[in-house]
Amino acid sequence: MSTPKKPRRTAERILEVTLALFNRFGEPNVSTTLISAELRISPGNLYYHFPAKDELVNALVDRHVQAFAELLPAAAGVAQVEDAWFFLHLLFERTWDCRFLYRDLNDLLSKNRHVEGRVRSLLADKGRALLHLVQGLRTGGVLAASDDEVQPLATAMLVLATYWLSYEYVRDPRRALEPGQEADALGRGAWHVLGLLLPYLEPASRAHLRGLAEAYR
Amino acid sequence: MSTPKKPRRTAERILEVTLALFNRFGEPNVSTTLISAELRISPGNLYYHFPAKDELVNALVDRHVQAFAELLPAAAGVAQVEDAWFFLHLLFERTWDCRFLYRDLNDLLSKNRHVEGRVRSLLADKGRALLHLVQGLRTGGVLAASDDEVQPLATAMLVLATYWLSYEYVRDPRRALEPGQEADALGRGAWHVLGLLLPYLEPASRAHLRGLAEAYR
Repeated sequence: MSTPKKPRRTAERILEVTLALFNRFGEPNVSTTLISAELRISPGNLYYHFPAKDELVNALVDRHVQAFAELLPAAAGVAQVEDAWFFLHLLFERTWDCRFLYRDLNDLLSKNRHVEGRVRSLLADKGRALLHLVQGLRTGGVLAASDDEVQPLATAMLVLATYWLSYEYVRDPRRALEPGQEADALGRGAWHVLGLLLPYLEPASRAHLRGLAEAYR
Repeated sequence: MSTPKKPRRTAERILEVTLALFNRFGEPNVSTTLISAELRISPGNLYYHFPAKDELVNALVDRHVQAFAELLPAAAGVAQVEDAWFFLHLLFERTWDCRFLYRDLNDLLSKNRHVEGRVRSLLADKGRALLHLVQGLRTGGVLAASDDEVQPLATAMLVLATYWLSYEYVRDPRRALEPGQEADALGRGAWHVLGLLLPYLEPASRAHLRGLAEAYR
């Protein structure tokens, strides 16, 4: 029945299926046995590509970090609320794609030094990008905030963006991370993160941001 | 060597030691074997009081919920920034006392319906209390926010307050939840949550809140 696959192709398929299972059930609830069963490959074949579950986690986290490395530089080009809106949506989409990581973040990083290091720098990079976003809006004349307001504001945006899906999960654990919830969850998240900017925006941009949020709903 | 103990006294001691172990190592890393070893009681004696690890978790979560039930009504009496500052510190102290719950929140509630239900209502109650706090400051003439700004602001405060310790943990997993970090972590958390109010405060209260934060540092 099965056609032979090149090793790289198989490794790719393993990662795709593993990501889907982790995102659906949470990493602690997915064993390598379940992964090989879902893929219809032998545990030995899975082991050949990824000799431990941690290596699957590491490969997925590396991809997630890479996806952010491609996105985050765009924050430096944000000058209008519409740019910020778009940037936040892209940021939330990437977070959603790897939501298993945020579901059990603390336990994953406490057990795995590679994840610990990667996530710590990811958060630092995300925080810097959000700082650039706030500073870009300020330079663009769209936002008025004093020097000592900018950093706490960016940090609050970072924490809200990082844990928004966890908050959604607590409110409705059996549905929040299912594929059908994506648009609503991400929209609410982006809106609440951008909402932190509202009191600092000049009136026209404030009205514009509210308009974007209304249109979204 | 050991003196006989009344059952209630023993149950109390078990909960205290379990809470300390959970907070220190994370619930997933603490077995009932470790708990009975730390208590120097037999696994049978532990089993007599708490027949499953989940019952220990449930009892600790119930206490945590009770501690919040005693605190949260105070939010309705907040009329000045100093009240808000004090309230947020008490809220963070109670969160710290049961930090194991927040370390692995999603996994704990996905495995345990009792925790799922209790945490969901706790978050709803905390959200309502923070809404009362914002409304109280507004009624006290200290804060100016429109009706449609108040709810997103309270939600952002809730998410930030709930996940602040997780954020500290990611930044420094081997130290963040150790007892010596308490004052700094809680101070930073309370400051960032209250920082969300800053742009809405009238100038004198804004200066006062900044002064409280400075004095704290």
